[in-house]
Amino acid sequence: MTIRIGILGYGNLGRGVEAAVRQNPDVELKAVFTRRDPASLTIQTPTAKVLHQDQAAGMRDEIDVLILCGGSATDLPQQTPAFASIFNVVDSFDTHARIPEHFAAVDAAAKKAGKVGLISCGWDPGMFSLNRLYAGCILPQGQDYTFWGKGVSQGHSDAVRRIEGVIDARQYTIPVEQALEAVRSGKAPDLTTREKHTREVFVVAEEGADKARIEREIKTMKNYFDQYDTTVHFISEEEMKRNHSGLPHGGRVIRTGQTGFNAEHTHVVEYSLKLDSNPEFTSSVIVAFARAVYRLHKEGQTGCKTVFDLPPAYLSPKSGEELRASLL
Amino acid sequence: MTIRIGILGYGNLGRGVEAAVRQNPDVELKAVFTRRDPASLTIQTPTAKVLHQDQAAGMRDEIDVLILCGGSATDLPQQTPAFASIFNVVDSFDTHARIPEHFAAVDAAAKKAGKVGLISCGWDPGMFSLNRLYAGCILPQGQDYTFWGKGVSQGHSDAVRRIEGVIDARQYTIPVEQALEAVRSGKAPDLTTREKHTREVFVVAEEGADKARIEREIKTMKNYFDQYDTTVHFISEEEMKRNHSGLPHGGRVIRTGQTGFNAEHTHVVEYSLKLDSNPEFTSSVIVAFARAVYRLHKEGQTGCKTVFDLPPAYLSPKSGEELRASLL
Repeated sequence: MTIRIGILGYGNLGRGVEAAVRQNPDVELKAVFTRRDPASLTIQTPTAKVLHQDQAAGMRDEIDVLILCGGSATDLPQQTPAFASIFNVVDSFDTHARIPEHFAAVDAAAKKAGKVGLISCGWDPGMFSLNRLYAGCILPQGQDYTFWGKGVSQGHSDAVRRIEGVIDARQYTIPVEQALEAVRSGKAPDLTTREKHTREVFVVAEEGADKARIEREIKTMKNYFDQYDTTVHFISEEEMKRNHSGLPHGGRVIRTGQTGFNAEHTHVVEYSLKLDSNPEFTSSVIVAFARAVYRLHKEGQTGCKTVFDLPPAYLSPKSGEELRASLL
Repeated sequence: MTIRIGILGYGNLGRGVEAAVRQNPDVELKAVFTRRDPASLTIQTPTAKVLHQDQAAGMRDEIDVLILCGGSATDLPQQTPAFASIFNVVDSFDTHARIPEHFAAVDAAAKKAGKVGLISCGWDPGMFSLNRLYAGCILPQGQDYTFWGKGVSQGHSDAVRRIEGVIDARQYTIPVEQALEAVRSGKAPDLTTREKHTREVFVVAEEGADKARIEREIKTMKNYFDQYDTTVHFISEEEMKRNHSGLPHGGRVIRTGQTGFNAEHTHVVEYSLKLDSNPEFTSSVIVAFARAVYRLHKEGQTGCKTVFDLPPAYLSPKSGEELRASLL
């Protein structure tokens, strides 16, 4: 009995989910849904259907978990609550500041429908969040630091692409080396957002576009760029393709904390990722958590969940006995 | 309403639990139980009782979770099942090979008594196990590596101390640098136990003890030393005190894995700890998980659990809403 998966949206993330499903024998891809013309998509799984997203509801009995692969800016705030009325869903909503309202909308829809909706799944939010939670509970007297990069942020690249006059864009997040060293030394420095990272954006603009306006719109974009020192480069489509076609990323979550009757001992907990492909790693996280969502739903749970709510064992195809014998 | 804690065994780990409880306002130390003369113990918490362990059962209604701070070699296999018949318990049983039988014994006792018993809690087993589980579920096509040290292993030091003629001992686990570099490069090397770590032991022997026999007993000790290259140094009590009184430790769990339709992308996931005090960090992990055990029991769950079974949110004093807003 396999876990039957649907994918909504066949961009980088959707293709990553398709690839990840192949590595998990207990999971099967049943359908890819798109808002484009289904005939225009070529997928890699001969046994799966390609359908327009309007046909998704008709597949409700053939899919256990629908994975939503749209963007956080405009797609997911609509899609996740809408599809949580029909399916168990997982999304990778990553606008941190808007998570509480997204949670509330998905929770209401999923509870009404008797479904489970897991939001903000991936590596940040996702695995980084989990590491912040665990380390913070272990070392309540301490300091949290998250560093990203060097790597391409899909969310930020996507946001720039939505600016008028922009054909294509790639945004690199770069950690500031001195800040990283100060943190790892256990000095517990107080760092502003600006002191921790810089942002570098490569833009292909339309012929005759107002580049000064585009640059200004990027640098002042709320939540995305306004708190960072950002450098913008305008390049040709050819250069974009040649030098910026990969989607590497990574980063680290560090917590330093003190223990002892007099806080005399210092500890450094660090979780780091070095990723050749950000969307494929994110997709791989999502597929593991889709297994957990399937199990929660089988147990009769409903409503919106986050990575904080799922027992780690639910992510694994192995039994509790196997896990204890091999991994504990 | 605080979570009321008891400590059984007031060695390094027990004192660490006492210190950790102070950092968690929702947790309170009610009693320390010892097999020594209670009058011989001086604890740091004026509001807590010091009692003989035979008096523990009489405190069953005043303690929510009893934390067992004995050793894995001989104490915990007896103590954890015995006390799981009376209390919710947490232990840090760390003999990996014997976890399945320990689980079975604690599970039977805890289920019969309607209690929850969490075993093998700490950093390894514990946080390292969790990181092996998460990374393995995310990257099913990959390789796991665990490196320890450089640091003092309490379990191994304790095992050496039980050898006849040994007054005191300190065992350092040391990762082999070339092995670590090969793993982090993504080369996925196949490493034997012996290639990954060396062990170094400092021993204070009794006057006139047979040092050759002690060294032989150490180097051939099953599960603890027989698979490693071990160096043994005999030193004076004074040198032990001067140079080896701290209990630093650390280590890292690394998983490298491949994703993509043709396994074309490589990822490196690394969790690392750098600890000034191994017992205080272990104790801090245990206290966070004791909170989770308390909640599971309140929900009506019973039986033996491991870190794999507990939803991460249960470790935190914060509400789901606070966690989503601040850490996700």
